[in-house]
Amino acid sequence: MELCREIELEGHIIDSGIMTLVFDKIMDMGGEFEILTFNVGKHKKDPSYARLRITAAEDQQLDSILSELHRLGARSPEIKDVTLKPAEGDRIVPKGFYSTTNHPTFVKYRDEWLPVEGIEMDCLIVVLEDAKRAICTPLSKLKAGDAVVIGENGVRVVYPERPRKVSTFEFMHGTVSSERPSETIIAKLAREILALKKKGGKIAIVGGPAIVHTGAADSLAKMIREGYIDVLFAGNALATHDIEYNLFGTSLGMDLKTGTLVTGGHKHHIYAISEIMRAGSIKNAVDLGIVTGGIMYECVKNGVPFVLAGSIRDDGPLPDVITDAMEAQDAMRELIQKDVGMVLMIGTLLHSVAVGNCLPSYVKTICVDINPASVTKLMDRGTMQAVGVVSDAGAFLPLLAKQLDEQSSSSTA
Amino acid sequence: MELCREIELEGHIIDSGIMTLVFDKIMDMGGEFEILTFNVGKHKKDPSYARLRITAAEDQQLDSILSELHRLGARSPEIKDVTLKPAEGDRIVPKGFYSTTNHPTFVKYRDEWLPVEGIEMDCLIVVLEDAKRAICTPLSKLKAGDAVVIGENGVRVVYPERPRKVSTFEFMHGTVSSERPSETIIAKLAREILALKKKGGKIAIVGGPAIVHTGAADSLAKMIREGYIDVLFAGNALATHDIEYNLFGTSLGMDLKTGTLVTGGHKHHIYAISEIMRAGSIKNAVDLGIVTGGIMYECVKNGVPFVLAGSIRDDGPLPDVITDAMEAQDAMRELIQKDVGMVLMIGTLLHSVAVGNCLPSYVKTICVDINPASVTKLMDRGTMQAVGVVSDAGAFLPLLAKQLDEQSSSSTA
Amino acid sequence: MELCREIELEGHIIDSGIMTLVFDKIMDMGGEFEILTFNVGKHKKDPSYARLRITAAEDQQLDSILSELHRLGARSPEIKDVTLKPAEGDRIVPKGFYSTTNHPTFVKYRDEWLPVEGIEMDCLIVVLEDAKRAICTPLSKLKAGDAVVIGENGVRVVYPERPRKVSTFEFMHGTVSSERPSETIIAKLAREILALKKKGGKIAIVGGPAIVHTGAADSLAKMIREGYIDVLFAGNALATHDIEYNLFGTSLGMDLKTGTLVTGGHKHHIYAISEIMRAGSIKNAVDLGIVTGGIMYECVKNGVPFVLAGSIRDDGPLPDVITDAMEAQDAMRELIQKDVGMVLMIGTLLHSVAVGNCLPSYVKTICVDINPASVTKLMDRGTMQAVGVVSDAGAFLPLLAKQLDEQSSSSTA
Amino acid sequence: MELCREIELEGHIIDSGIMTLVFDKIMDMGGEFEILTFNVGKHKKDPSYARLRITAAEDQQLDSILSELHRLGARSPEIKDVTLKPAEGDRIVPKGFYSTTNHPTFVKYRDEWLPVEGIEMDCLIVVLEDAKRAICTPLSKLKAGDAVVIGENGVRVVYPERPRKVSTFEFMHGTVSSERPSETIIAKLAREILALKKKGGKIAIVGGPAIVHTGAADSLAKMIREGYIDVLFAGNALATHDIEYNLFGTSLGMDLKTGTLVTGGHKHHIYAISEIMRAGSIKNAVDLGIVTGGIMYECVKNGVPFVLAGSIRDDGPLPDVITDAMEAQDAMRELIQKDVGMVLMIGTLLHSVAVGNCLPSYVKTICVDINPASVTKLMDRGTMQAVGVVSDAGAFLPLLAKQLDEQSSSSTA
Repeated sequence: MELCREIELEGHIIDSGIMTLVFDKIMDMGGEFEILTFNVGKHKKDPSYARLRITAAEDQQLDSILSELHRLGARSPEIKDVTLKPAEGDRIVPKGFYSTTNHPTFVKYRDEWLPVEGIEMDCLIVVLEDAKRAICTPLSKLKAGDAVVIGENGVRVVYPERPRKVSTFEFMHGTVSSERPSETIIAKLAREILALKKKGGKIAIVGGPAIVHTGAADSLAKMIREGYIDVLFAGNALATHDIEYNLFGTSLGMDLKTGTLVTGGHKHHIYAISEIMRAGSIKNAVDLGIVTGGIMYECVKNGVPFVLAGSIRDDGPLPDVITDAMEAQDAMRELIQKDVGMVLMIGTLLHSVAVGNCLPSYVKTICVDINPASVTKLMDRGTMQAVGVVSDAGAFLPLLAKQLDEQSSSSTA
Repeated sequence: MELCREIELEGHIIDSGIMTLVFDKIMDMGGEFEILTFNVGKHKKDPSYARLRITAAEDQQLDSILSELHRLGARSPEIKDVTLKPAEGDRIVPKGFYSTTNHPTFVKYRDEWLPVEGIEMDCLIVVLEDAKRAICTPLSKLKAGDAVVIGENGVRVVYPERPRKVSTFEFMHGTVSSERPSETIIAKLAREILALKKKGGKIAIVGGPAIVHTGAADSLAKMIREGYIDVLFAGNALATHDIEYNLFGTSLGMDLKTGTLVTGGHKHHIYAISEIMRAGSIKNAVDLGIVTGGIMYECVKNGVPFVLAGSIRDDGPLPDVITDAMEAQDAMRELIQKDVGMVLMIGTLLHSVAVGNCLPSYVKTICVDINPASVTKLMDRGTMQAVGVVSDAGAFLPLLAKQLDEQSSSSTA
Repeated sequence: MELCREIELEGHIIDSGIMTLVFDKIMDMGGEFEILTFNVGKHKKDPSYARLRITAAEDQQLDSILSELHRLGARSPEIKDVTLKPAEGDRIVPKGFYSTTNHPTFVKYRDEWLPVEGIEMDCLIVVLEDAKRAICTPLSKLKAGDAVVIGENGVRVVYPERPRKVSTFEFMHGTVSSERPSETIIAKLAREILALKKKGGKIAIVGGPAIVHTGAADSLAKMIREGYIDVLFAGNALATHDIEYNLFGTSLGMDLKTGTLVTGGHKHHIYAISEIMRAGSIKNAVDLGIVTGGIMYECVKNGVPFVLAGSIRDDGPLPDVITDAMEAQDAMRELIQKDVGMVLMIGTLLHSVAVGNCLPSYVKTICVDINPASVTKLMDRGTMQAVGVVSDAGAFLPLLAKQLDEQSSSSTA
Repeated sequence: MELCREIELEGHIIDSGIMTLVFDKIMDMGGEFEILTFNVGKHKKDPSYARLRITAAEDQQLDSILSELHRLGARSPEIKDVTLKPAEGDRIVPKGFYSTTNHPTFVKYRDEWLPVEGIEMDCLIVVLEDAKRAICTPLSKLKAGDAVVIGENGVRVVYPERPRKVSTFEFMHGTVSSERPSETIIAKLAREILALKKKGGKIAIVGGPAIVHTGAADSLAKMIREGYIDVLFAGNALATHDIEYNLFGTSLGMDLKTGTLVTGGHKHHIYAISEIMRAGSIKNAVDLGIVTGGIMYECVKNGVPFVLAGSIRDDGPLPDVITDAMEAQDAMRELIQKDVGMVLMIGTLLHSVAVGNCLPSYVKTICVDINPASVTKLMDRGTMQAVGVVSDAGAFLPLLAKQLDEQSSSSTA
């Protein structure tokens, strides 16, 4: 016995490669398809429409195929309301729960399409039935009794169409090459940043301590002061080294002007933490005039919020560090969801993965790391708009700050 | 005006290279030295003794030099008691505090040499005056009023002498090469492990999720079952993927037998976590017969303690995960200090750095990572007994398990 | 004024993603298109057919677009004979020459479709007018007066359709991951090798000296002895170290059994070369009983041809080494074109790139290197059938040899 | 029976660590030692003197130990003339030949100490008996009948003492870190370059094609024009891409100003080669006004000699390329031996290894590569004066050119 079901797809399904992905999935999973309707947009702005009949030998196989196609934006022609099922206990998922993608998603509930709020990958969707809201919910936040969406029925995913315009992100998409003209790439990124800021977009930075070690702290501080950065995500190390640099001119005891180790410098980071302990917080230390410059100083002075997440490698840590990983995740999530349009990830695989996990697929991402493997890992996370640059922070950030200067003054002139 | 002070050094100071380091330090820091006495051990087992007069132009420079020499094991001929100063507040260091190395250390207190307990790098020494004990204390544990050691006076560091015997660790010391005979190296490591176990030594493993992804979970489980592993340090990912593999045969949805992605497999790790949530803990899940094999199962069944430390990248996490970084550090510290003689670090830079931070310099360390930069970073942490291997867990662990099998059976026969 | 031209495409143009590439190219280059006919194959075996009208603002732009589409297999509905133009001098190309892809290619000459012989990338096509043959010709071989194909007119490229069947190459296509189950991957490769050999296919290996350093020489020698390898491409280093290993048990002076440096071992590779000098050639040294085992020995004994290409890093070199790069290229080309169906590239970026340059796109390629960047570089060379494995030769080859053993004996039984 | 022999050592044998290496070697190789005399230099400028009695159980073992100590600069108190033995045939070494280090070396011949000319590693020493000259001779140049030095008798190696002054090379010795302040390092290198040029020293560059791809060709061209570079070693790719960039503004078809691929750009490098073919040589092309700028142009215009060595990966190659590896080696050797005091190795592992093989140990070496593994490999070659920088050419060279500008103008002012 053969089983079949119909699906439909709409949009720039050919030039975005979605049609290809759909055909691939069906065949890879052992199904068959027949094309019932295929209206190809005749011009580049016209959307296309396709209706396919999917056939499979077994019920479960058919379900599997439909589930995968669903993630690519395919939908059933007749759409019913989502199926809901209460969670049995805190952090216990009901069988068959719908697991989210990081693409914009809608659920049909009482004949209305509700947008799923705070979409991120690998979460559940909980419907607040009275409020008529659908909330993307990580496992850690699931409460007993929450109405969890089951299966793909009534769920619609808007699979991202590739940007048609030749942007930096198009130009470099998927490439992680060290054989590119560095200055050209950085000039393009500066252009994107200026364009985004002009539109009122927000930019987050995820930064590792290498920013300070490689001597790029001044450049980043300048970018914050000039309003290019709206949120900072980092760990204890970046903040400690930045403050150590401000207090002593060293980073892990190395004088950043001369590149030599300073005697007794191995104690500097402990002193730096201890001074902030004494003041009570980084903000207090800035207000008291103890910390007088640097990345953290500019954040405080310019009202740029930051989340310092703790890790098991931390000394101290600083009183501002959120040592509980789940609390830190929540703090990061809250700031990310506030209209961040671009994220710069510089020299920190770990924080970058954590931030990347919470990002919707339409946020532009720039990953800069000296290690090509780190860049590759970050690029593998399903955004269509990621640019990977194999470079060190110490060369990248000064060049970027310089480009921002030049381009912004030339556009003003 | 010239200032001078005398120091003395004793032990295998020439063949361990300590003498060279001492001369280097003095001259690099702009000091001068005169050798007053130099009795070189005539044979390889004889210790040498040197007495030097150090001269510098300024007081502070002289102090700096002596401070650095101190860390290499040099001591003042006339030794006074340590200077103590109370901490002004919780986690606030007194000026001039002594910052520890990771070498065995003693403090002279009321004419007695007290061993510093729980030595690790970059901490303070707190003396319990009544109990006559000296405790290595990280900044996070410092309490107001603690009697903190100030300066190097009365502190003695036993700088590690290089192992003279040609051991695996000698043979490979400092090398992080992928151009070595893999099987030969692994055979040597197996020999070291067997020798250590025979003497009743303990072995810790720090493992990343790549162990499961690369198909090496069975080999590690076997090593735990056979008593080669005494402690496990890992994160949520390793444990989750191990349990996912036990429950579904997949790791992040990939069937490890066929290497292909399983439909719906992207939900498996969420299901795995949810099942452990339902049981309450990994141990309960093992006791209830839900988890029936794998790394975590063998830990539970064989009474091997584990610390799962949380991170901001975690899904879930499992109920056993310690989400607070400082609590996790404490849990790790406690287990490390219990006579661990060797640590295997496999495929996890982060956890490895965290564990490495707490290790005394005499513990043997083996770092296995596919990324040479990670191996280098781990090797840079001041132990004389580290071996770096650039390899993937999927190839390394099965070969190691096989060598342990063969060598242990041949030694029995 | 708008200019337009029609093209047609045929085959599995949707499920192979070609249609998407075509649409992309047109729009990226600023052209427009209208779909005149689009017959989508209704089932997975049915080919599709599309006819498009391409429009551009300028003549040169239109030509550029058509030139790019041509490389994707698009053709003009009315096809004329190729245009030919004589080369002005040796190694001097005529303006507008057609530059080859590495896909199977045909030229229409006097109304006949001639297959282009010895296709490889970035070469010219020379038509032997009397013999009615078309020869793929690298710049270095171009002679004054050769009839060179100009423009895309009358040239047809068969763009590779992706293999539909789930093979190893499909399964891993484009992935260069160290987070894969190593043993599973190697088992799959062994299966592919056995299947290819069963069909009479030929396998080439491109090997670097790391094969010997990492202790994998015995495994490769065994594979040659058992008939899995039909051609060897290497340099002076691999052969010298292999012979050093056979004569002295060392590789660059390191005893491969114990992993320690042998006294005087730094002279071994010079002695090894000198001994072959004395014998006159590797073959002579084998025949005289001087070399009694190893990779080169098995090549000689089993009639496996090899090309040892010289490089500026060479000591010696061995008398068998072809020191002229162009002569070595020719020797490699000749052996590659003899029905090689698979190439194993192990631990040598340089030789692998050189061999890759001469390979048609349908040859299966497996790249094994400890350096992910090298693997990525090799994978970027346009074959649809490349598998990248980040591993060291010392672990990979013994595991592969073992799998070949097990699988071949089980299939025989 | 115990065998013994005496050796002596002189110089900064303690602070250079040589004494430590000597003790290590003896004990690692199973020997014993007794210190007969040990006069330690009392101040930092004073040399030390040591006389040791080495004991071993067997004749061969004792020889082995003495041979290793010899390479560290140890010598026998009674020195006889070198032993010579004629080579049996071309490129056939006599048994027991002395294999060179890359340190300055002298041989005692008829009671005179002859300096070994053109010292490089792993070669033989041939004595021209009539001319009283000693020539460092690679295997490939050995002729039948040449008088080859046998054993260590009468050979003296001047093991390099570490530079005491804190120079860039001291400061960074042995470190290959991406966690260093990039601008500080580059400023220091600029200082070293200016100091060397002031003293009339010569600087060679070994460059890979990444210099052009990453957009750094203009910076290098400027450095050549301004007299900072005295020799260029490269391959066909660098020269071809540089010329392509000059003729078309592209590198491998990518427009370096916009970073986008140019239509038909894949033919540009073939056209570039073909144009040089037509002109006959790069020099001719410059003279004829075909090539009007870039790296190769500046070399021609400023009389900077270059060696372009062929490889099996080459297209074309250019008529200036030396395709025979042994001829290319000779050409490189000749230029290296002409007082080169510093070598910059940028983005090319292969050429850098080849040049490194021919360098005496006192030449300063700077290795810049985006791949840490390449940097490590280059640093492992026994020079005391190597600096490794993990960076991309596209960021490094413009920053270096800028520093040279600033520092040279400030020193002039």
